[in-house]
Amino acid sequence: MKIFALPGNTLLARGIAHHLGVETGESTLRRFPDGESYVRLLCEVERQHAVIVCTLFQPDDKILPLYYLARLLKESGAQSVTLVAPYLAYMRQDKLFNPGEAVTSNYFAVLLSSFVDRLITIDPHLHRHGSMAELYTIPCKVIHAAPLLSDWIRQYVANPIIIGPDSESEQWVSEVAAKADAPYLVLKKVRHSDNDVEVSTPVVAAYQGRIPVLVDDIISTAHTMIETVGHLRVAGMAAPVCIGVHPVFAGNAYEDLVAAGAAEVISCNTIQHPSNRIDVAGMLATVMSAYYQTTIQHGQ
Amino acid sequence: MKIFALPGNTLLARGIAHHLGVETGESTLRRFPDGESYVRLLCEVERQHAVIVCTLFQPDDKILPLYYLARLLKESGAQSVTLVAPYLAYMRQDKLFNPGEAVTSNYFAVLLSSFVDRLITIDPHLHRHGSMAELYTIPCKVIHAAPLLSDWIRQYVANPIIIGPDSESEQWVSEVAAKADAPYLVLKKVRHSDNDVEVSTPVVAAYQGRIPVLVDDIISTAHTMIETVGHLRVAGMAAPVCIGVHPVFAGNAYEDLVAAGAAEVISCNTIQHPSNRIDVAGMLATVMSAYYQTTIQHGQ
Repeated sequence: MKIFALPGNTLLARGIAHHLGVETGESTLRRFPDGESYVRLLCEVERQHAVIVCTLFQPDDKILPLYYLARLLKESGAQSVTLVAPYLAYMRQDKLFNPGEAVTSNYFAVLLSSFVDRLITIDPHLHRHGSMAELYTIPCKVIHAAPLLSDWIRQYVANPIIIGPDSESEQWVSEVAAKADAPYLVLKKVRHSDNDVEVSTPVVAAYQGRIPVLVDDIISTAHTMIETVGHLRVAGMAAPVCIGVHPVFAGNAYEDLVAAGAAEVISCNTIQHPSNRIDVAGMLATVMSAYYQTTIQHGQ
Repeated sequence: MKIFALPGNTLLARGIAHHLGVETGESTLRRFPDGESYVRLLCEVERQHAVIVCTLFQPDDKILPLYYLARLLKESGAQSVTLVAPYLAYMRQDKLFNPGEAVTSNYFAVLLSSFVDRLITIDPHLHRHGSMAELYTIPCKVIHAAPLLSDWIRQYVANPIIIGPDSESEQWVSEVAAKADAPYLVLKKVRHSDNDVEVSTPVVAAYQGRIPVLVDDIISTAHTMIETVGHLRVAGMAAPVCIGVHPVFAGNAYEDLVAAGAAEVISCNTIQHPSNRIDVAGMLATVMSAYYQTTIQHGQ
Protein backbone atom coordinates (compact mmCIF):
# COMPACT_ATOMS: atom_id res chain seq x y z
CA MET A 1 0.00 0.00 0.00
CA LYS A 2 1.16 3.54 -0.80
CA ILE A 3 -0.44 6.66 0.64
CA PHE A 4 -0.65 9.89 -1.38
CA ALA A 5 -1.71 13.30 -0.14
CA LEU A 6 -3.33 16.18 -1.94
CA PRO A 7 -2.03 19.61 -0.85
CA GLY A 8 -3.22 20.34 2.71
CA ASN A 9 -3.33 16.64 3.65
CA THR A 10 0.38 15.85 3.99
CA LEU A 11 0.52 15.77 7.79
CA LEU A 12 -2.45 13.43 8.16
CA ALA A 13 -1.21 11.18 5.35
CA ARG A 14 2.17 10.88 7.09
CA GLY A 15 0.45 10.10 10.39
CA ILE A 16 -1.63 7.32 8.81
CA ALA A 17 1.38 5.90 6.96
CA HIS A 18 3.39 5.91 10.20
CA HIS A 19 0.67 4.02 12.10
CA LEU A 20 0.30 1.49 9.28
CA GLY A 21 4.05 1.17 8.70
CA VAL A 22 3.64 1.84 4.96
CA GLU A 23 5.23 4.34 2.58
CA THR A 24 3.88 7.70 1.54
CA GLY A 25 3.95 7.96 -2.25
CA GLU A 26 5.76 10.81 -3.95
CA SER A 27 3.80 13.06 -6.27
CA THR A 28 3.74 16.67 -7.41
CA LEU A 29 0.48 18.62 -7.46
CA ARG A 30 0.61 22.29 -8.29
CA ARG A 31 -1.17 24.96 -10.30
CA PHE A 32 0.02 26.69 -13.45
CA PRO A 33 -0.17 30.51 -13.55
CA ASP A 34 -3.50 30.22 -15.46
CA GLY A 35 -5.08 28.22 -12.62
CA GLU A 36 -4.92 24.78 -14.27
CA SER A 37 -3.67 21.84 -12.22
CA TYR A 38 -0.47 19.91 -12.87
CA VAL A 39 -0.16 16.36 -11.50
CA ARG A 40 2.87 14.08 -11.63
CA LEU A 41 3.58 10.71 -10.05
CA LEU A 42 7.17 10.29 -8.83
CA CYS A 43 7.12 6.65 -7.70
CA GLU A 44 6.10 3.17 -8.81
CA VAL A 45 2.57 1.99 -8.00
CA GLU A 46 2.25 -1.06 -10.23
CA ARG A 47 0.17 -3.82 -8.62
CA GLN A 48 -0.05 -1.80 -5.39
CA HIS A 49 -3.06 -0.48 -3.51
CA ALA A 50 -2.98 3.31 -3.69
CA VAL A 51 -4.65 5.50 -1.09
CA ILE A 52 -5.30 9.21 -1.67
CA VAL A 53 -5.85 11.37 1.41
CA CYS A 54 -7.93 14.38 0.36
CA THR A 55 -10.31 16.01 2.76
CA LEU A 56 -13.19 17.58 0.84
CA PHE A 57 -13.57 20.82 2.71
CA GLN A 58 -14.08 23.67 0.14
CA PRO A 59 -14.51 20.91 -2.42
CA ASP A 60 -15.07 22.71 -5.72
CA ASP A 61 -11.44 23.41 -6.65
CA LYS A 62 -10.18 20.08 -5.28
CA ILE A 63 -12.19 17.75 -7.47
CA LEU A 64 -10.13 18.08 -10.67
CA PRO A 65 -6.68 17.47 -9.07
CA LEU A 66 -8.21 14.52 -7.17
CA TYR A 67 -9.71 13.10 -10.36
CA TYR A 68 -6.42 13.54 -12.23
CA LEU A 69 -4.38 11.81 -9.52
CA ALA A 70 -6.86 8.93 -9.24
CA ARG A 71 -6.83 8.35 -13.01
CA LEU A 72 -3.05 8.66 -13.17
CA LEU A 73 -2.63 6.05 -10.41
CA LYS A 74 -4.94 3.66 -12.25
CA GLU A 75 -3.18 4.25 -15.54
CA SER A 76 0.17 3.71 -13.84
CA GLY A 77 -0.91 0.21 -12.80
CA ALA A 78 -2.27 0.65 -9.27
CA GLN A 79 -4.43 -2.31 -8.31
CA SER A 80 -6.96 -0.11 -6.53
CA VAL A 81 -7.45 3.55 -5.62
CA THR A 82 -9.03 4.33 -2.25
CA LEU A 83 -10.04 7.83 -1.31
CA VAL A 84 -9.66 8.75 2.35
CA ALA A 85 -11.78 11.90 2.70
CA PRO A 86 -11.86 12.58 6.44
CA TYR A 87 -14.42 15.31 5.72
CA LEU A 88 -16.84 14.42 2.94
CA ALA A 89 -18.49 17.22 0.96
CA TYR A 90 -21.99 17.63 -0.43
CA MET A 91 -23.85 15.67 2.24
CA ARG A 92 -26.21 18.50 3.13
CA GLN A 93 -28.27 19.09 -0.05
CA ASP A 94 -29.80 15.63 0.43
CA LYS A 95 -33.34 16.33 -0.80
CA LEU A 96 -35.38 18.85 -2.79
CA PHE A 97 -35.93 21.69 -0.36
CA ASN A 98 -37.41 23.68 -3.27
CA PRO A 99 -38.54 22.56 -6.74
CA GLY A 100 -35.83 22.57 -9.41
CA GLU A 101 -32.87 22.09 -7.07
CA ALA A 102 -29.92 19.87 -7.85
CA VAL A 103 -29.70 17.17 -5.17
CA THR A 104 -25.95 17.47 -5.02
CA SER A 105 -25.43 14.73 -2.40
CA ASN A 106 -26.50 12.33 -5.13
CA TYR A 107 -24.71 13.97 -8.07
CA PHE A 108 -21.46 14.28 -6.13
CA ALA A 109 -21.60 10.62 -5.09
CA VAL A 110 -22.09 9.53 -8.70
CA LEU A 111 -19.07 11.59 -9.77
CA LEU A 112 -16.73 10.33 -7.01
CA SER A 113 -17.90 6.75 -7.55
CA SER A 114 -16.88 7.03 -11.21
CA PHE A 115 -13.17 7.47 -10.53
CA VAL A 116 -12.21 5.96 -7.15
CA ASP A 117 -12.70 2.34 -6.13
CA ARG A 118 -13.67 2.90 -2.53
CA LEU A 119 -14.15 5.62 0.03
CA ILE A 120 -13.24 5.93 3.71
CA THR A 121 -14.67 8.88 5.63
CA ILE A 122 -15.30 10.14 9.16
CA ASP A 123 -18.79 11.02 10.42
CA PRO A 124 -20.37 12.06 7.12
CA HIS A 125 -23.48 14.21 7.59
CA LEU A 126 -25.93 11.34 7.01
CA HIS A 127 -29.22 12.98 7.77
CA ARG A 128 -31.95 11.95 5.38
CA HIS A 129 -29.89 9.22 3.81
CA GLY A 130 -29.77 6.21 6.11
CA SER A 131 -26.45 4.93 4.79
CA MET A 132 -23.72 5.72 2.31
CA ALA A 133 -24.93 2.86 0.10
CA GLU A 134 -28.03 4.93 -0.77
CA LEU A 135 -25.70 7.43 -2.43
CA TYR A 136 -22.44 5.75 -3.36
CA THR A 137 -22.12 2.82 -5.71
CA ILE A 138 -18.60 2.03 -4.45
CA PRO A 139 -17.83 0.36 -1.09
CA CYS A 140 -17.70 2.98 1.70
CA LYS A 141 -16.35 2.70 5.20
CA VAL A 142 -17.64 5.20 7.75
CA ILE A 143 -15.55 5.88 10.86
CA HIS A 144 -16.98 7.47 14.01
CA ALA A 145 -14.93 10.02 15.89
CA ALA A 146 -17.18 9.91 18.99
CA PRO A 147 -14.80 7.72 21.06
CA LEU A 148 -11.94 10.16 20.40
CA LEU A 149 -14.11 13.08 21.56
CA SER A 150 -15.08 11.14 24.71
CA ASP A 151 -11.41 10.37 25.45
CA TRP A 152 -10.44 14.00 25.02
CA ILE A 153 -13.29 15.22 27.27
CA ARG A 154 -12.45 12.67 29.98
CA GLN A 155 -8.81 13.78 29.96
CA TYR A 156 -9.25 17.53 29.77
CA VAL A 157 -12.66 18.54 31.22
CA ALA A 158 -13.52 18.00 34.88
CA ASN A 159 -17.25 17.60 35.56
CA PRO A 160 -18.64 18.21 32.05
CA ILE A 161 -22.20 18.49 30.74
CA ILE A 162 -22.30 17.58 27.03
CA ILE A 163 -24.59 19.73 24.88
CA GLY A 164 -25.66 18.72 21.38
CA PRO A 165 -26.96 21.18 18.77
CA ASP A 166 -30.24 19.51 17.76
CA SER A 167 -32.42 16.45 18.00
CA GLU A 168 -30.80 14.92 14.88
CA SER A 169 -27.56 14.72 16.81
CA GLU A 170 -29.06 13.05 19.90
CA GLN A 171 -27.81 9.52 19.25
CA TRP A 172 -24.30 10.71 18.51
CA VAL A 173 -24.21 13.14 21.47
CA SER A 174 -25.50 10.47 23.87
CA GLU A 175 -22.69 8.17 22.69
CA VAL A 176 -20.04 10.87 23.28
CA ALA A 177 -21.56 11.54 26.74
CA ALA A 178 -21.82 7.90 27.78
CA LYS A 179 -18.16 7.16 26.98
CA ALA A 180 -17.12 10.43 28.67
CA ASP A 181 -19.19 9.41 31.72
CA ALA A 182 -21.14 12.67 31.61
CA PRO A 183 -24.77 13.83 31.37
CA TYR A 184 -26.04 15.47 28.16
CA LEU A 185 -28.67 17.83 26.77
CA VAL A 186 -29.78 18.48 23.19
CA LEU A 187 -31.01 21.82 21.91
CA LYS A 188 -33.87 22.56 19.54
CA LYS A 189 -33.11 24.72 16.51
CA VAL A 190 -35.03 26.28 13.66
CA ARG A 191 -33.14 27.11 10.44
CA HIS A 192 -34.48 30.19 8.63
CA SER A 193 -31.67 30.40 6.03
CA ASP A 194 -27.95 29.55 5.62
CA ASN A 195 -26.96 32.24 8.08
CA ASP A 196 -30.00 32.56 10.30
CA VAL A 197 -30.58 29.79 12.84
CA GLU A 198 -32.54 30.14 16.07
CA VAL A 199 -31.63 27.99 19.07
CA SER A 200 -33.69 27.18 22.16
CA THR A 201 -32.19 28.11 25.55
CA PRO A 202 -31.31 24.85 27.21
CA VAL A 203 -32.60 23.96 30.67
CA VAL A 204 -29.26 24.29 32.33
CA ALA A 205 -30.33 25.20 35.86
CA ALA A 206 -29.75 21.64 36.99
CA TYR A 207 -26.17 21.70 35.74
CA GLN A 208 -24.72 24.80 37.42
CA GLY A 209 -21.15 24.00 38.43
CA ARG A 210 -20.56 21.73 35.44
CA ILE A 211 -18.44 22.79 32.44
CA PRO A 212 -20.63 22.91 29.30
CA VAL A 213 -19.06 21.05 26.37
CA LEU A 214 -20.79 21.88 23.08
CA VAL A 215 -20.27 19.18 20.47
CA ASP A 216 -21.22 19.09 16.78
CA ASP A 217 -20.18 17.06 13.75
CA ILE A 218 -19.50 20.10 11.53
CA ILE A 219 -18.74 23.65 12.67
CA SER A 220 -19.36 25.73 9.55
CA THR A 221 -20.75 29.23 10.12
CA ALA A 222 -20.72 28.44 13.91
CA HIS A 223 -23.93 30.47 14.28
CA THR A 224 -25.62 27.78 16.38
CA MET A 225 -22.63 27.43 18.71
CA ILE A 226 -22.17 31.19 19.03
CA GLU A 227 -25.82 31.66 19.96
CA THR A 228 -25.66 28.78 22.45
CA VAL A 229 -22.48 30.13 24.05
CA GLY A 230 -24.36 33.41 24.59
CA HIS A 231 -27.38 31.67 26.16
CA LEU A 232 -25.14 29.66 28.50
CA ARG A 233 -23.23 32.74 29.63
CA VAL A 234 -26.53 34.57 30.30
CA ALA A 235 -27.70 31.53 32.31
CA GLY A 236 -24.63 31.94 34.51
CA MET A 237 -22.82 28.78 33.32
CA ALA A 238 -19.02 28.55 33.06
CA ALA A 239 -17.41 29.45 29.71
CA PRO A 240 -18.06 26.43 27.47
CA VAL A 241 -15.64 24.20 25.59
CA CYS A 242 -16.66 23.85 21.91
CA ILE A 243 -15.74 20.69 20.03
CA GLY A 244 -16.36 19.97 16.36
CA VAL A 245 -15.34 16.85 14.48
CA HIS A 246 -14.97 18.83 11.22
CA PRO A 247 -13.57 22.39 11.57
CA VAL A 248 -15.01 23.84 8.35
CA PHE A 249 -15.16 27.36 9.85
CA ALA A 250 -16.59 29.42 6.97
CA GLY A 251 -15.28 33.01 6.85
CA ASN A 252 -14.52 34.34 10.35
CA ALA A 253 -16.51 31.63 12.15
CA TYR A 254 -13.56 30.50 14.28
CA GLU A 255 -12.61 34.01 15.41
CA ASP A 256 -16.28 34.81 16.08
CA LEU A 257 -16.72 31.69 18.21
CA VAL A 258 -13.65 32.52 20.29
CA ALA A 259 -14.86 36.13 20.64
CA ALA A 260 -18.33 34.93 21.75
CA GLY A 261 -16.78 33.53 24.91
CA ALA A 262 -15.85 29.90 24.27
CA ALA A 263 -13.24 28.77 26.80
CA GLU A 264 -11.64 26.52 24.18
CA VAL A 265 -12.41 25.63 20.55
CA ILE A 266 -11.26 22.10 19.77
CA SER A 267 -11.44 19.97 16.61
CA CYS A 268 -10.29 16.77 14.98
CA ASN A 269 -7.65 17.04 12.24
CA THR A 270 -10.10 15.95 9.53
CA ILE A 271 -9.41 19.46 8.15
CA GLN A 272 -6.10 21.19 8.99
CA HIS A 273 -6.88 24.04 11.38
CA PRO A 274 -5.25 25.77 14.40
CA SER A 275 -7.99 24.24 16.61
CA ASN A 276 -6.89 20.64 15.83
CA ARG A 277 -6.25 18.83 19.13
CA ILE A 278 -7.77 15.40 18.46
CA ASP A 279 -5.74 13.25 16.08
CA VAL A 280 -7.70 10.87 13.84
CA ALA A 281 -4.63 9.26 12.22
CA GLY A 282 -4.41 6.29 14.61
CA MET A 283 -8.11 5.47 14.38
CA LEU A 284 -8.05 5.81 10.57
CA ALA A 285 -5.04 3.50 10.38
CA THR A 286 -6.62 0.86 12.64
CA VAL A 287 -9.89 0.82 10.71
CA MET A 288 -8.11 0.97 7.32
CA SER A 289 -5.95 -1.96 8.22
CA ALA A 290 -8.90 -4.16 9.19
CA TYR A 291 -10.93 -2.90 6.21
CA TYR A 292 -8.15 -3.68 3.75
CA GLN A 293 -7.78 -7.19 5.10
CA THR A 294 -11.47 -7.99 4.77
CA THR A 295 -12.68 -5.88 1.84
CA ILE A 296 -9.74 -5.95 -0.49
CA GLN A 297 -8.78 -9.54 0.02
CA HIS A 298 -12.32 -10.46 -0.92
CA GLY A 299 -11.88 -8.50 -4.10
CA GLN A 300 -14.45 -5.76 -3.45
CA MET B 1 -33.57 26.04 -27.37
CA LYS B 2 -32.83 27.67 -24.01
CA ILE B 3 -29.51 29.25 -23.11
CA PHE B 4 -28.15 29.10 -19.56
CA ALA B 5 -25.14 30.95 -18.17
CA LEU B 6 -22.77 30.06 -15.37
CA PRO B 7 -21.71 33.07 -13.27
CA GLY B 8 -19.42 35.31 -15.34
CA ASN B 9 -21.06 34.29 -18.62
CA THR B 10 -24.35 36.16 -18.43
CA LEU B 11 -23.50 38.93 -20.87
CA LEU B 12 -22.26 36.58 -23.58
CA ALA B 13 -25.21 34.22 -23.08
CA ARG B 14 -27.61 37.14 -23.52
CA GLY B 15 -25.76 38.24 -26.64
CA ILE B 16 -26.00 34.79 -28.20
CA ALA B 17 -29.67 34.43 -27.23
CA HIS B 18 -30.42 37.84 -28.76
CA HIS B 19 -28.72 36.92 -32.06
CA LEU B 20 -30.53 33.56 -32.18
CA GLY B 21 -33.87 35.00 -31.05
CA VAL B 22 -34.19 32.39 -28.28
CA GLU B 23 -34.77 32.62 -24.54
CA THR B 24 -32.17 32.63 -21.80
CA GLY B 25 -33.08 30.06 -19.15
CA GLU B 26 -33.48 31.08 -15.55
CA SER B 27 -31.34 29.35 -12.96
CA THR B 28 -29.65 30.10 -9.63
CA LEU B 29 -26.02 29.21 -9.06
CA ARG B 30 -24.39 30.31 -5.83
CA ARG B 31 -22.06 29.09 -3.12
CA PHE B 32 -22.93 28.21 0.48
CA PRO B 33 -20.76 29.73 3.24
CA ASP B 34 -18.75 26.46 3.37
CA GLY B 35 -17.79 26.76 -0.32
CA GLU B 36 -20.22 24.16 -1.70
CA SER B 37 -22.23 24.99 -4.80
CA TYR B 38 -26.00 25.36 -4.93
CA VAL B 39 -27.76 24.95 -8.27
CA ARG B 40 -31.45 25.45 -9.03
CA LEU B 41 -33.40 25.48 -12.27
CA LEU B 42 -36.18 28.07 -12.42
CA CYS B 43 -37.78 27.24 -15.76
CA GLU B 44 -39.11 24.37 -17.82
CA VAL B 45 -36.70 22.54 -20.14
CA GLU B 46 -38.64 19.42 -20.98
CA ARG B 47 -38.00 18.23 -24.56
CA GLN B 48 -35.93 21.37 -25.23
CA HIS B 49 -32.31 21.68 -26.28
CA ALA B 50 -30.38 23.28 -23.42
CA VAL B 51 -27.18 25.24 -23.96
CA ILE B 52 -24.84 26.12 -21.09
CA VAL B 53 -22.44 29.00 -21.66
CA CYS B 54 -19.44 28.47 -19.37
CA THR B 55 -16.02 29.67 -20.36
CA LEU B 56 -13.39 27.43 -18.77
CA PHE B 57 -10.85 30.01 -17.72
CA GLN B 58 -9.62 29.15 -14.15
CA PRO B 59 -11.42 25.85 -14.61
CA ASP B 60 -10.91 23.97 -11.35
CA ASP B 61 -13.68 25.52 -9.29
CA LYS B 62 -16.10 25.73 -12.24
CA ILE B 63 -16.31 22.06 -13.05
CA LEU B 64 -18.65 20.99 -10.21
CA PRO B 65 -21.31 23.70 -10.76
CA LEU B 66 -21.14 22.97 -14.50
CA TYR B 67 -21.53 19.23 -13.88
CA TYR B 68 -24.45 19.83 -11.49
CA LEU B 69 -26.29 22.10 -13.93
CA ALA B 70 -25.75 19.70 -16.84
CA ARG B 71 -27.09 16.74 -14.83
CA LEU B 72 -29.99 18.78 -13.51
CA LEU B 73 -30.99 19.84 -17.05
CA LYS B 74 -30.90 16.23 -18.21
CA GLU B 75 -32.88 15.05 -15.20
CA SER B 76 -35.41 17.82 -15.80
CA GLY B 77 -36.13 16.44 -19.24
CA ALA B 78 -33.85 18.48 -21.55
CA GLN B 79 -33.46 16.70 -24.87
CA SER B 80 -29.76 17.60 -25.11
CA VAL B 81 -27.19 19.61 -23.19
CA THR B 82 -24.61 21.54 -25.22
CA LEU B 83 -21.67 23.24 -23.56
CA VAL B 84 -20.52 26.48 -25.15
CA ALA B 85 -17.06 27.01 -23.67
CA PRO B 86 -15.63 29.96 -25.61
CA TYR B 87 -12.31 29.30 -23.84
CA LEU B 88 -11.58 25.60 -23.35
CA ALA B 89 -9.28 24.54 -20.50
CA TYR B 90 -6.63 21.85 -20.24
CA MET B 91 -5.46 21.92 -23.87
CA ARG B 92 -1.82 22.55 -23.04
CA GLN B 93 -0.69 19.43 -21.11
CA ASP B 94 -1.17 17.43 -24.30
CA LYS B 95 1.72 14.95 -23.97
CA LEU B 96 4.16 13.54 -21.41
CA PHE B 97 6.75 16.27 -21.09
CA ASN B 98 8.23 14.27 -18.17
CA PRO B 99 7.61 10.68 -17.05
CA GLY B 100 4.75 10.19 -14.62
CA GLU B 101 2.75 13.24 -15.67
CA ALA B 102 -1.03 13.28 -15.99
CA VAL B 103 -1.92 14.12 -19.60
CA THR B 104 -4.73 16.36 -18.47
CA SER B 105 -5.92 17.31 -21.97
CA ASN B 106 -7.05 13.72 -22.25
CA TYR B 107 -8.42 13.27 -18.70
CA PHE B 108 -10.35 16.54 -18.86
CA ALA B 109 -11.90 15.59 -22.21
CA VAL B 110 -13.04 12.24 -20.81
CA LEU B 111 -14.67 13.98 -17.85
CA LEU B 112 -16.49 16.66 -19.90
CA SER B 113 -17.59 14.07 -22.44
CA SER B 114 -19.24 12.10 -19.62
CA PHE B 115 -21.80 14.76 -18.75
CA VAL B 116 -22.47 17.05 -21.73
CA ASP B 117 -23.74 15.92 -25.12
CA ARG B 118 -21.70 18.23 -27.29
CA LEU B 119 -19.20 21.04 -27.11
CA ILE B 120 -18.77 24.30 -29.00
CA THR B 121 -15.54 26.25 -28.48
CA ILE B 122 -13.43 29.00 -30.01
CA ASP B 123 -9.83 28.45 -31.10
CA PRO B 124 -8.88 25.68 -28.66
CA HIS B 125 -5.12 25.31 -28.25
CA LEU B 126 -4.82 22.31 -30.61
CA HIS B 127 -1.10 21.84 -30.79
CA ARG B 128 -0.08 18.20 -30.72
CA HIS B 129 -3.62 16.97 -31.12
CA GLY B 130 -4.71 17.33 -34.74
CA SER B 131 -8.41 17.60 -33.93
CA MET B 132 -10.84 17.61 -31.04
CA ALA B 133 -11.97 14.11 -32.01
CA GLU B 134 -8.62 12.76 -30.79
CA LEU B 135 -9.58 13.91 -27.29
CA TYR B 136 -13.35 14.23 -27.04
CA THR B 137 -15.80 11.40 -27.59
CA ILE B 138 -18.72 13.84 -28.00
CA PRO B 139 -19.34 15.93 -31.15
CA CYS B 140 -17.31 19.16 -31.02
CA LYS B 141 -17.61 22.28 -33.10
CA VAL B 142 -14.56 24.54 -33.30
CA ILE B 143 -15.04 28.18 -34.25
CA HIS B 144 -12.22 30.41 -35.49
CA ALA B 145 -11.99 34.00 -34.33
CA ALA B 146 -9.42 34.96 -36.98
CA PRO B 147 -11.95 36.74 -39.25
CA LEU B 148 -13.10 38.88 -36.29
CA LEU B 149 -9.50 39.85 -35.52
CA SER B 150 -8.91 40.75 -39.17
CA ASP B 151 -12.05 42.90 -39.25
CA TRP B 152 -11.01 44.74 -36.10
CA ILE B 153 -7.49 45.37 -37.42
CA ARG B 154 -8.80 46.63 -40.77
CA GLN B 155 -11.12 49.05 -38.98
CA TYR B 156 -8.81 50.35 -36.29
CA VAL B 157 -5.16 50.02 -37.38
CA ALA B 158 -3.78 51.94 -40.35
CA ASN B 159 -0.81 50.27 -42.04
CA PRO B 160 -0.31 47.28 -39.73
CA ILE B 161 2.34 44.55 -39.63
CA ILE B 162 0.94 41.44 -37.94
CA ILE B 163 3.36 39.62 -35.61
CA GLY B 164 2.76 36.07 -34.37
CA PRO B 165 4.38 34.59 -31.28
CA ASP B 166 5.87 31.36 -32.70
CA SER B 167 6.06 29.03 -35.66
CA GLU B 168 3.11 26.96 -34.35
CA SER B 169 0.90 29.99 -34.86
CA GLU B 170 2.05 30.68 -38.44
CA GLN B 171 -1.00 29.30 -40.22
CA TRP B 172 -3.39 31.16 -37.96
CA VAL B 173 -1.39 34.42 -38.09
CA SER B 174 -1.11 34.28 -41.86
CA GLU B 175 -4.90 33.91 -42.05
CA VAL B 176 -5.45 36.94 -39.80
CA ALA B 177 -2.93 38.92 -41.90
CA ALA B 178 -4.38 37.90 -45.25
CA LYS B 179 -7.91 38.96 -44.30
CA ALA B 180 -6.56 42.19 -42.78
CA ASP B 181 -4.63 42.84 -45.99
CA ALA B 182 -1.35 43.17 -44.10
CA PRO B 183 2.10 41.57 -44.09
CA TYR B 184 3.12 39.32 -41.16
CA LEU B 185 6.13 37.95 -39.26
CA VAL B 186 6.39 35.06 -36.79
CA LEU B 187 8.83 34.98 -33.88
CA LYS B 188 10.91 32.08 -32.60
CA LYS B 189 10.64 31.31 -28.89
CA VAL B 190 12.27 28.91 -26.46
CA ARG B 191 10.32 27.96 -23.30
CA HIS B 192 12.56 27.32 -20.26
CA SER B 193 9.72 27.03 -17.71
CA ASP B 194 6.15 28.32 -17.11
CA ASN B 195 7.45 31.81 -16.46
CA ASP B 196 10.66 31.95 -18.46
CA VAL B 197 10.32 32.22 -22.22
CA GLU B 198 12.93 33.70 -24.56
CA VAL B 199 11.84 35.36 -27.78
CA SER B 200 13.91 36.13 -30.89
CA THR B 201 14.10 39.78 -32.00
CA PRO B 202 12.11 39.98 -35.21
CA VAL B 203 13.59 41.38 -38.40
CA VAL B 204 11.53 44.53 -38.32
CA ALA B 205 13.83 46.90 -40.22
CA ALA B 206 11.75 46.45 -43.38
CA TYR B 207 8.58 47.47 -41.55
CA GLN B 208 9.52 50.83 -40.02
CA GLY B 209 6.50 53.10 -40.29
CA ARG B 210 4.00 50.26 -39.86
CA ILE B 211 2.07 49.68 -36.61
CA PRO B 212 3.06 46.33 -35.10
CA VAL B 213 0.02 44.22 -34.16
CA LEU B 214 0.96 41.29 -31.90
CA VAL B 215 -1.60 38.49 -32.05
CA ASP B 216 -1.86 35.29 -30.01
CA ASP B 217 -4.59 32.76 -29.27
CA ILE B 218 -4.12 32.88 -25.46
CA ILE B 219 -2.54 35.68 -23.44
CA SER B 220 -1.77 34.02 -20.10
CA THR B 221 1.38 35.24 -18.32
CA ALA B 222 1.94 37.66 -21.29
CA HIS B 223 5.70 37.12 -20.92
CA THR B 224 6.18 36.54 -24.63
CA MET B 225 4.22 39.64 -25.59
CA ILE B 226 5.93 41.77 -22.95
CA GLU B 227 9.36 40.72 -24.18
CA THR B 228 8.36 41.32 -27.79
CA VAL B 229 6.95 44.76 -27.01
CA GLY B 230 10.36 45.59 -25.47
CA HIS B 231 12.27 44.37 -28.54
CA LEU B 232 10.02 46.33 -30.89
CA ARG B 233 10.44 49.54 -28.91
CA VAL B 234 14.26 49.06 -28.88
CA ALA B 235 14.11 48.51 -32.66
CA GLY B 236 12.44 51.94 -32.97
CA MET B 237 9.00 50.65 -34.00
CA ALA B 238 5.76 52.39 -33.00
CA ALA B 239 4.04 51.22 -29.78
CA PRO B 240 2.36 47.92 -30.70
CA VAL B 241 -1.28 46.87 -30.49
CA CYS B 242 -1.62 43.52 -28.64
CA ILE B 243 -4.57 41.25 -29.49
CA GLY B 244 -5.43 37.95 -27.81
CA VAL B 245 -8.41 35.78 -28.60
CA HIS B 246 -8.54 34.51 -24.99
CA PRO B 247 -7.66 37.09 -22.28
CA VAL B 248 -6.60 34.64 -19.54
CA PHE B 249 -4.19 37.21 -18.01
CA ALA B 250 -2.70 35.27 -15.06
CA GLY B 251 -1.88 37.46 -12.04
CA ASN B 252 -0.86 40.98 -13.12
CA ALA B 253 -0.22 40.03 -16.74
CA TYR B 254 -2.62 42.63 -18.14
CA GLU B 255 -1.21 45.51 -16.07
CA ASP B 256 2.34 44.38 -16.90
CA LEU B 257 1.60 44.30 -20.62
CA VAL B 258 0.13 47.80 -20.53
CA ALA B 259 3.10 49.02 -18.49
CA ALA B 260 5.56 47.44 -20.96
CA GLY B 261 4.42 49.92 -23.60
CA ALA B 262 1.56 48.33 -25.55
CA ALA B 263 -0.45 51.05 -27.31
CA GLU B 264 -3.63 48.99 -26.85
CA VAL B 265 -4.45 45.60 -25.38
CA ILE B 266 -7.48 44.08 -27.11
CA SER B 267 -9.30 40.78 -26.68
CA CYS B 268 -12.37 38.79 -27.63
CA ASN B 269 -15.08 38.35 -24.99
CA THR B 270 -14.42 34.60 -24.69
CA ILE B 271 -13.47 35.52 -21.09
CA GLN B 272 -14.99 38.66 -19.50
CA HIS B 273 -12.20 41.23 -19.18
CA PRO B 274 -11.78 45.03 -19.45
CA SER B 275 -9.79 44.49 -22.68
CA ASN B 276 -12.81 42.93 -24.47
CA ARG B 277 -13.41 44.84 -27.74
CA ILE B 278 -14.19 42.02 -30.19
CA ASP B 279 -17.61 40.44 -29.67
CA VAL B 280 -17.89 36.74 -30.49
CA ALA B 281 -21.65 36.48 -29.77
CA GLY B 282 -22.76 37.01 -33.38
CA MET B 283 -20.29 34.52 -34.80
CA LEU B 284 -21.19 31.95 -32.13
CA ALA B 285 -24.89 32.39 -32.87
CA THR B 286 -24.41 32.00 -36.63
CA VAL B 287 -22.33 28.86 -36.27
CA MET B 288 -24.59 27.41 -33.54
CA SER B 289 -27.65 27.95 -35.65
CA ALA B 290 -26.18 26.07 -38.62
CA TYR B 291 -24.68 23.43 -36.35
CA TYR B 292 -27.99 22.81 -34.59
CA GLN B 293 -29.79 22.42 -37.88
CA THR B 294 -27.36 19.84 -39.22
CA THR B 295 -26.06 18.00 -36.14
CA ILE B 296 -29.08 17.86 -33.92
CA GLN B 297 -31.65 17.17 -36.57
CA HIS B 298 -29.56 14.18 -37.56
CA GLY B 299 -29.71 13.01 -33.95
CA GLN B 300 -26.02 13.27 -33.09
